[in-house]
Amino acid sequence: MEEKVRIIKGGLFDLPDKLSEEEVFEELFCGASFRVERIISSGQASPPGFWYDQEEDEWVALLQGEAELEFEDGAVQKLKKGDWAFLPASLRHRVAATSVDPPCIWLAIFGPPADGRNGR
Amino acid sequence: MEEKVRIIKGGLFDLPDKLSEEEVFEELFCGASFRVERIISSGQASPPGFWYDQEEDEWVALLQGEAELEFEDGAVQKLKKGDWAFLPASLRHRVAATSVDPPCIWLAIFGPPADGRNGR
Repeated sequence: MEEKVRIIKGGLFDLPDKLSEEEVFEELFCGASFRVERIISSGQASPPGFWYDQEEDEWVALLQGEAELEFEDGAVQKLKKGDWAFLPASLRHRVAATSVDPPCIWLAIFGPPADGRNGR
Repeated sequence: MEEKVRIIKGGLFDLPDKLSEEEVFEELFCGASFRVERIISSGQASPPGFWYDQEEDEWVALLQGEAELEFEDGAVQKLKKGDWAFLPASLRHRVAATSVDPPCIWLAIFGPPADGRNGR
């Protein structure tokens, strides 16, 4: 019989002593239906004119810090600690700003969109 | 053309003025491939002899507080703020203890297991 493997780890709120100049993307977990990433941002933003246009649905929470998400319709949404967003696949968006002190800790969940909703 | 609906909400770390005597389960989001729940515990534990035996994979993070998970093989795993666990479908487990001060804030992601892994 296959063993059910539990995984237990820590450090969601831990930061390195020296922050990177780049955003740091860490895959924490990848399972059958979703994967989990932690992202650390400290002042970075998406390049001007760059839009994320993802094949997966994303649910993302800001565990620490403040940030701004921008959408193609011009809307800018401020996020603070404890805010979360659902960004469906192919919803074009960019990170317009992230706080340095404290740095942003994002927890992002990605999974396939409903059949046919993406790539039309 | 279908509009891509973004959802932005807050309050992951907010607690009610008066905590319930029961654990509080809130579904924050339910999408095509995963759903997200917030759970607030403050001293509750699973009844003795009770085991969660879930049909879905669960990835759960402790955003605040301290807790203990118990497994059928007798292992007890202490969790503190920032720890997370992957609990595959049908892995029997129970919540052995949760802190009152501060209360536990859990963020749990649920999704279907790989085909054939569950229910054998």
